[in-house]
Amino acid sequence: MKRKKYYWEDFPIGSVTEYGGVTLSKEDIVRFAKEFDPQPFHIDEEAAKHSQFGGLIASGWHTCSLCMRMMCDAYLLESANLASPGVENIRWLKPVRPGDTLHVRSVVLEARPLESKPHIGLMRNRWEVINQHGEEVMQMEGYGMMHRRSHKK
Amino acid sequence: MKRKKYYWEDFPIGSVTEYGGVTLSKEDIVRFAKEFDPQPFHIDEEAAKHSQFGGLIASGWHTCSLCMRMMCDAYLLESANLASPGVENIRWLKPVRPGDTLHVRSVVLEARPLESKPHIGLMRNRWEVINQHGEEVMQMEGYGMMHRRSHKK
Repeated sequence: MKRKKYYWEDFPIGSVTEYGGVTLSKEDIVRFAKEFDPQPFHIDEEAAKHSQFGGLIASGWHTCSLCMRMMCDAYLLESANLASPGVENIRWLKPVRPGDTLHVRSVVLEARPLESKPHIGLMRNRWEVINQHGEEVMQMEGYGMMHRRSHKK
Repeated sequence: MKRKKYYWEDFPIGSVTEYGGVTLSKEDIVRFAKEFDPQPFHIDEEAAKHSQFGGLIASGWHTCSLCMRMMCDAYLLESANLASPGVENIRWLKPVRPGDTLHVRSVVLEARPLESKPHIGLMRNRWEVINQHGEEVMQMEGYGMMHRRSHKK
């Protein structure tokens, strides 16, 4: 295994990490939605004005995908991580609109070595996606697994 | 409200709908992942060979986004739907690889009118994403809301 910067030990229970800072343009929102979620309030500015949102909003899957990207850039690409089995409780709390700048606040809720594979540590995180007004626009929770520094080859 | 083809009544508890049929190329997988999830096993064919997966696999968020697109094409764009507050229990069960063709099997688990807004019906669905071998590669659950045909203006 290649040497990595971050291991399971670097994310103890209760630790909080803040990162990100991605600004979405109208073009970003429409391009993603045309490919994956072409509902009128995601792709058609005029139709969106008359929707429940009063204007264009990003697909919730776009926000999830951007959260993943911010996570990758902040630590995941430099960590000894394994793939995630899934995520829980995705909540799209507020609309994400053109020009919004998003950050992530990540909290470690749980952390323990796997009983069956003690060289791997499990962690459960909550990720909060926050806009430039400090409003939480999305939240999700999920399990991740990383190699333990104390057990690395 | 514009006249729509599908309303809440069209999705009773226990009803099952199958749809989709999207084939992912290697280029699709790499392009999505370079933008949103640039982990080596999603973007680098050579690195992926030496990973736990033995080859390139799609980002889990790509599979979610494709599931959304298949849902849009099958019924959502022609339905009197409102936005979803969130999804639960996303499970990435098996890798999605270049050349895989994905379908969705959607099951209605719960359906009831909103007490506070009786013109809107709530439903809880489970979406299973299935590959060309009949293997379930992803599963998720979520709430949706649609206008009721019986209450439309």
